[in-house]
Amino acid sequence: MDIGSRMQRLRSTLGDLDALLVTRLVNIRYLSGFTGSAASLLIGREAACFVSDGRYAEQSREQLGAAGCDATIEIASGGAQERLARTITDWGARRLGFEAHGVTWAEHRSFSETFAGVELVATEHTVEQLRQVKEPSEVERIRAACAIGDDAFSEIVTLLPSGPSEQELALELERAMRERGAESTSFDPIVASGPNSAKPHARPSTREIGRNELVVLDFGCVVDGYCSDMTRTVSVGDPGDDARRVFDVVLESQRAGRHAVADGVACAAVDTASREVVDEAGFGELFTHGTGHGVGLEIHEAPRVAATASDTLAFGHVVTVEPGVYRPGVGGVRIEDTVVVTPHGAEPLTSSSKELVL
Amino acid sequence: MDIGSRMQRLRSTLGDLDALLVTRLVNIRYLSGFTGSAASLLIGREAACFVSDGRYAEQSREQLGAAGCDATIEIASGGAQERLARTITDWGARRLGFEAHGVTWAEHRSFSETFAGVELVATEHTVEQLRQVKEPSEVERIRAACAIGDDAFSEIVTLLPSGPSEQELALELERAMRERGAESTSFDPIVASGPNSAKPHARPSTREIGRNELVVLDFGCVVDGYCSDMTRTVSVGDPGDDARRVFDVVLESQRAGRHAVADGVACAAVDTASREVVDEAGFGELFTHGTGHGVGLEIHEAPRVAATASDTLAFGHVVTVEPGVYRPGVGGVRIEDTVVVTPHGAEPLTSSSKELVL
Repeated sequence: MDIGSRMQRLRSTLGDLDALLVTRLVNIRYLSGFTGSAASLLIGREAACFVSDGRYAEQSREQLGAAGCDATIEIASGGAQERLARTITDWGARRLGFEAHGVTWAEHRSFSETFAGVELVATEHTVEQLRQVKEPSEVERIRAACAIGDDAFSEIVTLLPSGPSEQELALELERAMRERGAESTSFDPIVASGPNSAKPHARPSTREIGRNELVVLDFGCVVDGYCSDMTRTVSVGDPGDDARRVFDVVLESQRAGRHAVADGVACAAVDTASREVVDEAGFGELFTHGTGHGVGLEIHEAPRVAATASDTLAFGHVVTVEPGVYRPGVGGVRIEDTVVVTPHGAEPLTSSSKELVL
Repeated sequence: MDIGSRMQRLRSTLGDLDALLVTRLVNIRYLSGFTGSAASLLIGREAACFVSDGRYAEQSREQLGAAGCDATIEIASGGAQERLARTITDWGARRLGFEAHGVTWAEHRSFSETFAGVELVATEHTVEQLRQVKEPSEVERIRAACAIGDDAFSEIVTLLPSGPSEQELALELERAMRERGAESTSFDPIVASGPNSAKPHARPSTREIGRNELVVLDFGCVVDGYCSDMTRTVSVGDPGDDARRVFDVVLESQRAGRHAVADGVACAAVDTASREVVDEAGFGELFTHGTGHGVGLEIHEAPRVAATASDTLAFGHVVTVEPGVYRPGVGGVRIEDTVVVTPHGAEPLTSSSKELVL
């Protein structure tokens, strides 16, 4: 990955700021390669300063070196803000951007006190904006994570007929992904069966998965920091007419959303394409969430794919398309792919079968 | 757990606030039992209002009901802040506390716009303060998580002589904890061998664990939302005089810290007790982090156990004691227990052997 060039690209977006203070760790990782749990990255017009603490002295040097990130590394165990203040003064920076969506109100107050004589300027999603467009090497990592998910799914569905509990199946899913090289899950897997499937974000329970009922499996993993995300709904045996009807509507809705994805298309239009199918079937009120979200270093990132979204899709964006219909007390269906926007429209990175009945 | 009474206890700490808006999810869980990913909880003098979105309609009712939380539940898909604003107006609340350490600068700006005519008052760690003192049922959950960690550890150390990679061992550790009933890990396990052990927060690599070298294992799991945390340093065969010397110093430092833990003792004094042993051995500069931290619904929570900490220990506090010495290029040693403050001093909740050589 060409991490080293990202700070330069960021600089071209800084407008009249003298420097940007990046404190969201995922953005620091994007710009520097650093994966630890404590750091700040100050990016000036010509220089950059990375501050972490004693626990990360060695790791900082290794990771920034490997990434080709030319920020000066300072290790401050206590007094990190004072180091930043000194650098800001050395650079003569007057207008300092901060991440208004990542900095807490209390941190901002502390900045105001420590960075005397500096104008703090709220910025929002500056680095996240860059991160939306994935480099080919980033897409490859997401693709690898998706492939692991596909592969793990094909293994664990064979366990369903034996009636494991939701928790047991979730654990098997996780094991199967890690054994295939995932560094972690991208979120706690959702395995929701029978009435539990009506809860879009149910947590796996001790409920044993039965026959002829809907089972929603929503899961993903991480490869070199990049996430995958996929949902399939299956049933061991025929779940009945009502469930099949809901399934067919969601399948068609997902297809419609996927086909709407293309460079230059408004994210809201993708949501509309998916939602219209559900609305026409009379289930509109039961599709209680947005159609999708961006995927990358975070499992949920820009752009959002929702009715209220203002983003427009572009080449290299990676988003999910995941409509769902949830009938309380009965069950729910959700189907989700992660796709990348290419000149040929949406290329799915997840490719597991969408058959309902196993 | 007596979740239902916690809001009442919180009310007694509100001083001249008319209401507190709780937005940190872990605090919402503590006060309401809700485990989802999106909610706000507005706590007034006499009433409370919980707002989540359509994905959590059913889950909210179930979890708040089970917890005995008497907040009114509102489901707002979009417009959550407007619902809160209406409730604030209905209550006639004028002084509204917000969590300054959890609310981003951008969220605060949005509150200022939506909650017209209300004075926003910065509060810090109000709920976290309550959370420091664990109820017996909370200690039992942490104890259960610690016991799972102990048990998993005793299984996976038997794998070390066969020379697994750090990643393989980390995965086995996770599997062993989940098979014993953990709902998840409390953080990504650290398995750091040989030179990697010199990085306090190393991530498991493909490096194969050899004989006669230090291996730091730092891991924990979650039971019903509550975390455990433990570190052991081991070696297959004799790691040599230097390593044994460092180990003995850290072992003694950990014992000293543990014995300093008691009701009424300053957290800083516990740090001093641990640090003095390391300082006297001449390794002071290589002990690059604080001595410990609180453990509960979060893996790192109040109180901190560090030189700069101002907290004082009290009955029911649960903290880690985890000194470490890291020699870059050579290796590191860290030893950690999770302990609860009782009338008899520190009662360890983790109890695995601290033998160095397997």
